[in-house]
Amino acid sequence: MIVVITPNPAVDVTYRVADQVVGVTQRVLDVVRRPGGKGVNVARVLDAAGVPTTSVLPLGGTSGAWVAAALQRDGLTTAAVPVVGDTRTTVTVVDDHVHPTMYGEPGPAVTADEWATVTGAVRNAQAAASALVVSGSLPRGTDPSVVRPWIRGAVDAGLLVVADLSGPSLLEAAAAGATVCKPNREELLDATGARDERSGALDLLARGAGVVVVSAGSAGITAHTPDAVVTVPAVPNVHGNPTGAGDAATAGLVLALTAPGPRTAADVTAPDVLHRALVSAAAYGAAAVLRPVAGEVDLAAVDRFTTQLDRTGSPT
Amino acid sequence: MIVVITPNPAVDVTYRVADQVVGVTQRVLDVVRRPGGKGVNVARVLDAAGVPTTSVLPLGGTSGAWVAAALQRDGLTTAAVPVVGDTRTTVTVVDDHVHPTMYGEPGPAVTADEWATVTGAVRNAQAAASALVVSGSLPRGTDPSVVRPWIRGAVDAGLLVVADLSGPSLLEAAAAGATVCKPNREELLDATGARDERSGALDLLARGAGVVVVSAGSAGITAHTPDAVVTVPAVPNVHGNPTGAGDAATAGLVLALTAPGPRTAADVTAPDVLHRALVSAAAYGAAAVLRPVAGEVDLAAVDRFTTQLDRTGSPT
Repeated sequence: MIVVITPNPAVDVTYRVADQVVGVTQRVLDVVRRPGGKGVNVARVLDAAGVPTTSVLPLGGTSGAWVAAALQRDGLTTAAVPVVGDTRTTVTVVDDHVHPTMYGEPGPAVTADEWATVTGAVRNAQAAASALVVSGSLPRGTDPSVVRPWIRGAVDAGLLVVADLSGPSLLEAAAAGATVCKPNREELLDATGARDERSGALDLLARGAGVVVVSAGSAGITAHTPDAVVTVPAVPNVHGNPTGAGDAATAGLVLALTAPGPRTAADVTAPDVLHRALVSAAAYGAAAVLRPVAGEVDLAAVDRFTTQLDRTGSPT
Repeated sequence: MIVVITPNPAVDVTYRVADQVVGVTQRVLDVVRRPGGKGVNVARVLDAAGVPTTSVLPLGGTSGAWVAAALQRDGLTTAAVPVVGDTRTTVTVVDDHVHPTMYGEPGPAVTADEWATVTGAVRNAQAAASALVVSGSLPRGTDPSVVRPWIRGAVDAGLLVVADLSGPSLLEAAAAGATVCKPNREELLDATGARDERSGALDLLARGAGVVVVSAGSAGITAHTPDAVVTVPAVPNVHGNPTGAGDAATAGLVLALTAPGPRTAADVTAPDVLHRALVSAAAYGAAAVLRPVAGEVDLAAVDRFTTQLDRTGSPT
């Protein structure tokens, strides 16, 4: 079982309109509402791949109640922590002409006591878990050190910990000793202030991260350890919906790193292990692009892409 | 007591952003959520003016539950009819530079059985009422004749009935014998296909409306009967938020027409009664512009504007 923390879950609403224009009343032609947040997408993909998950997430208000009911309806196991503030909504407006416009609410003010309850829920859930994933933004105004006890506690309990965070919380995750920090390249450079990917990765490694995995879209995905850099290219010519591809890649990474087999925690830094994990991440990411909504993957495509990427060869 | 039907209530969400731009991710700086729908605004103003109301409205899903709780918190009496579909949300995006952008969801698919329950709720509520107001859009896909039994039943029971509707439902309201049909000029021309206001008003009167009151913003507000046209100018130099001004005007109209005094239903078409009602509508409409949110009026301003408009003289 894998515990997935989504610190700032959302009701993800998508509005289809004829033409996006500012300053007028737009008739919404079609409405889709889905539970969202990066961790929720990761949990969905893990679940689809047959690995049980427990989603720990603060939920509040009628929007939070909606997310809880929707996740239950979708068969995801949750350990929801009730909070007073309303769970946020994101509104994405799409048409057939220009890029989507996304409006992201800041998220509720979660109190220190509520975060302590989240930490307790994580501790309870991880007793039966092999890995912990922390993924997505923190509600605006949250102290980024809130992630420390989750990551430190899971590492101390022997779990594989993957942190897909950004900004100051990414630095906190590294300092807390996350097995894998997995920012995208922009998030890495932004959080560390580094000028290039390797320097940023070395910064996180120096802070305490075990491995730094950096996704760079069509430029592929790269794992950094103090001694090695392993890159797997993106699957070429995959077109579709990139939303949630990074979350599927996180799931692919976790699946590979927690697959049964004779391996110690230290093995995670072995180049062949990292290569297999990156292939899995790239295959899951590409397979998610083929699906119209975030949190879904085409599992047949995962197999096909894995074979295709394996043919590109192992690292030297 | 006044019964107010809101056929398509909403969660009205306002997002403040720094700059409205299409095709990018926009950080929402501030979120305001309010129960909405034109009838809800009318009920709020009546309530603020000291006249008790009962709001009949179909509500469904967690969004409907939110509206019910918010109206109760605000002290409004409701007769909510539970429906299976989710109550709609409207999202209005504002910044300090350009006009707001409004995204309107279509509203739930309300079944014939659910509408029958609404009709029953209206019948129950109107037993203790002096007037019925039907205000706002119908959920997309609703047969416009759904408004007929509400209006016909209330007229038969001796209530004053004011219909602020548009499109085919405005024609249905006239045919059902609404005491007052109150479209704005654009809605009147659109629904009747008439080329000018008087022709459109005569069309509704021929269908069965008692009086047609047409609001035209800064051009004032006009009452049409078969024999008379009475106009009251808008209060000049009032600047602020026009959202909900038309709903406040409807409330002002209803308040004047239901004020205690020796008057029969037929008196509603007397020019002096209509003049007083239009002054009240114009004063409430202008007083609403002074408030930042729909459904509120500045009651001191109502008195001031009424005096000011009265000085402009009665009709000949």
